[in-house]
Amino acid sequence: MHKLVVLYPPPPDPEAFKSYYTSTHLPLAAKLPGLRAYRYAFDVGSPAGDSPYFCIFEADYDSAEAMGESMGSEQGQIVAADVPNYAPPGVVMIHYEVAEGA
Amino acid sequence: MHKLVVLYPPPPDPEAFKSYYTSTHLPLAAKLPGLRAYRYAFDVGSPAGDSPYFCIFEADYDSAEAMGESMGSEQGQIVAADVPNYAPPGVVMIHYEVAEGA
Repeated sequence: MHKLVVLYPPPPDPEAFKSYYTSTHLPLAAKLPGLRAYRYAFDVGSPAGDSPYFCIFEADYDSAEAMGESMGSEQGQIVAADVPNYAPPGVVMIHYEVAEGA
Repeated sequence: MHKLVVLYPPPPDPEAFKSYYTSTHLPLAAKLPGLRAYRYAFDVGSPAGDSPYFCIFEADYDSAEAMGESMGSEQGQIVAADVPNYAPPGVVMIHYEVAEGA
């Protein structure tokens, strides 16, 4: 399985972020082609004190190729174009092939 | 479900990191009490260019309380004490309650 993770720094207005994210952005992301599952969280904390991130989004794909095709699709471009509508600067996107624990 | 995620910046010697992580650190982490599942990845990439992280570790717990007890346990302290043995500065630890996608 290949995962895409998006990490959002704390926004100036957390409630506005949550509202836009759940009402507008997530429904767009849910339509991404090839997406097998996704999950997200607000109010991300840290055991070490302040968290550098406020929100996390995780998307599961069958492969790196499927993820690349999804992001390059028309829906992928719609999703990417929506991010500046709600996200603060400093959004981190990472992806990786998952190794399950024993 | 409550998740703990550890994000490691690129180490000076990636092969040494991988070797220590899989041979020593992961077996210690796998013994954490209350741990329901875990997964990890090396060679984390970014669609936006260089990734700020090289390795990611995800741990699933039943609840925030279970995670807290796990990290505060004797094994949790052993795991935490091992991190400086292989990790570069700038390790990020975050945790959050997961909302599954529709």
